[in-house]
Amino acid sequence: MASSPGSPVFEQLGLIGCGLMGGSFALALKRAGMVKRVVGYSKSPSTTERARQLGVIDVEAPSALLAVSGADLVLLAVPVAATEATFKAIRHLIGPNTLVMDVGSTKREVIDAARRVLRDQVGVFVPAHPIAGKELSGVEHADPELYQGRQVILTPIERTLTAQLGRAQQVWTALGCQIKQMSPEAHDAAYAAVSHLPHMIAFALMNAITGQAQGEAFLSLAGPGFRDFTRIAASDPSVWRDILASNREELLAQSRHFQRALHAFETAIAASNPDALEVLIEQASEARATWRMNAVKPQS
Amino acid sequence: MASSPGSPVFEQLGLIGCGLMGGSFALALKRAGMVKRVVGYSKSPSTTERARQLGVIDVEAPSALLAVSGADLVLLAVPVAATEATFKAIRHLIGPNTLVMDVGSTKREVIDAARRVLRDQVGVFVPAHPIAGKELSGVEHADPELYQGRQVILTPIERTLTAQLGRAQQVWTALGCQIKQMSPEAHDAAYAAVSHLPHMIAFALMNAITGQAQGEAFLSLAGPGFRDFTRIAASDPSVWRDILASNREELLAQSRHFQRALHAFETAIAASNPDALEVLIEQASEARATWRMNAVKPQS
Repeated sequence: MASSPGSPVFEQLGLIGCGLMGGSFALALKRAGMVKRVVGYSKSPSTTERARQLGVIDVEAPSALLAVSGADLVLLAVPVAATEATFKAIRHLIGPNTLVMDVGSTKREVIDAARRVLRDQVGVFVPAHPIAGKELSGVEHADPELYQGRQVILTPIERTLTAQLGRAQQVWTALGCQIKQMSPEAHDAAYAAVSHLPHMIAFALMNAITGQAQGEAFLSLAGPGFRDFTRIAASDPSVWRDILASNREELLAQSRHFQRALHAFETAIAASNPDALEVLIEQASEARATWRMNAVKPQS
Repeated sequence: MASSPGSPVFEQLGLIGCGLMGGSFALALKRAGMVKRVVGYSKSPSTTERARQLGVIDVEAPSALLAVSGADLVLLAVPVAATEATFKAIRHLIGPNTLVMDVGSTKREVIDAARRVLRDQVGVFVPAHPIAGKELSGVEHADPELYQGRQVILTPIERTLTAQLGRAQQVWTALGCQIKQMSPEAHDAAYAAVSHLPHMIAFALMNAITGQAQGEAFLSLAGPGFRDFTRIAASDPSVWRDILASNREELLAQSRHFQRALHAFETAIAASNPDALEVLIEQASEARATWRMNAVKPQS
């Protein structure tokens, strides 16, 4: 497919991390005609090989540095705790015109790592968080449609270069995303509430059930409500370990909010107070029934 | 559609409660050719009228008793706290050959109400809980496919008549359900874990977010993980008030299990112990990734 008018065309995407998020980005960029070649690197050589076999990348690089060599666009799609080591591995080949982005679910730690490692060059880095994903990880599940119609949050800092920020906006817009710009702090607070805490809760619920003698029997009885509620509990452990750990303060603060709200339910139930219980459920039900994903853009 | 060989054909379904669950049952039974007429009653006359206009019921009854008059099959599809009053309203017209069922999400309180009110006739009542639903309530969302392929739990007691139990099994089988039989106690313990607690958690999460000054902003940023996790939070308040209240002991016990599991996450995060955190997530992710809904029947 030819690139849309106004979309940048890159010579080379240097893709560090050829999993679901990185692989989907490469496929989407290729399909939009916005990149001439994709050179990919993953920590596991078998992943890199598989990515090439699947056509997600064109060339396998034996190191992160070699994936970046010659790249005018670099995407870090690694667990957030690996960000600093990745920046260290590639910094010597990042030029002043390179656009570097990540896809991490937390932004403050990632930006701190970028400041420490990239120093004077930190302006080429545009921190990005596309609000997309699947509970299935791995390059086999890479999907050029993954980002289509989703929000992407950009959290530039004062030193971010406007040229790079502008190109980052063009890239994600061309992939069908709705762009929102906010501070790293506001980002991490919001996603603690609407993503990181729900994941932690879903994980904890699974462990609470499987930790009981009758857990297997209970699970065999679960229906579609449980299926949807716990879908995110199947998420990738190393990715989510890093996300929960790197947003510790905000996540624990949100967990306290949640436990207070849960306690209100328990109190109404223990006191056999159906009126209070119904009011609590009404608040929740009304809020959820009127919520729409991506409500900022016009409803289609 | 003609009834399948072996499926009973009823002269009249007396439907008490023409909402999502009751309306879907009536539509499914009609489509299977298993009932000659459906006489319906809802507490709100406008609901009963709407059910007739939509073809969900054939005749509007002005009272629960009149819906049951002439019925050889009676379905109570009312919030569980309304069960006792409903049994009182209809008991004088329940005959020894009537099959009476409910669709309540808790079973002990419903059965206690049946024992108290129906007394010698309690044997005609087969307590049933189909594991199906939507977050949308009301007869407008009634769907003849709602029960297709779902589990239905029957919790007969020692006094349940085998004739009625056998016909109940035939009915649900003909509607495409997989039948599981268990004690009311085992039922209520299991569904506290896999349904009632998830609902309470989803409600509490919504309230925790909307209770914060930035709640609206947070919600505008939420993505598909949040969408699925909180779908059940939009459930009907009066229905879920009754469910949570009527399974109080089991629900509070499951909530304690959950809070212990959640605390393990918080401890690992607060202690900056990524290895412990990853182990906790791996347990959850593995359990959820291998779970299959209705795993008892052969995978299709």
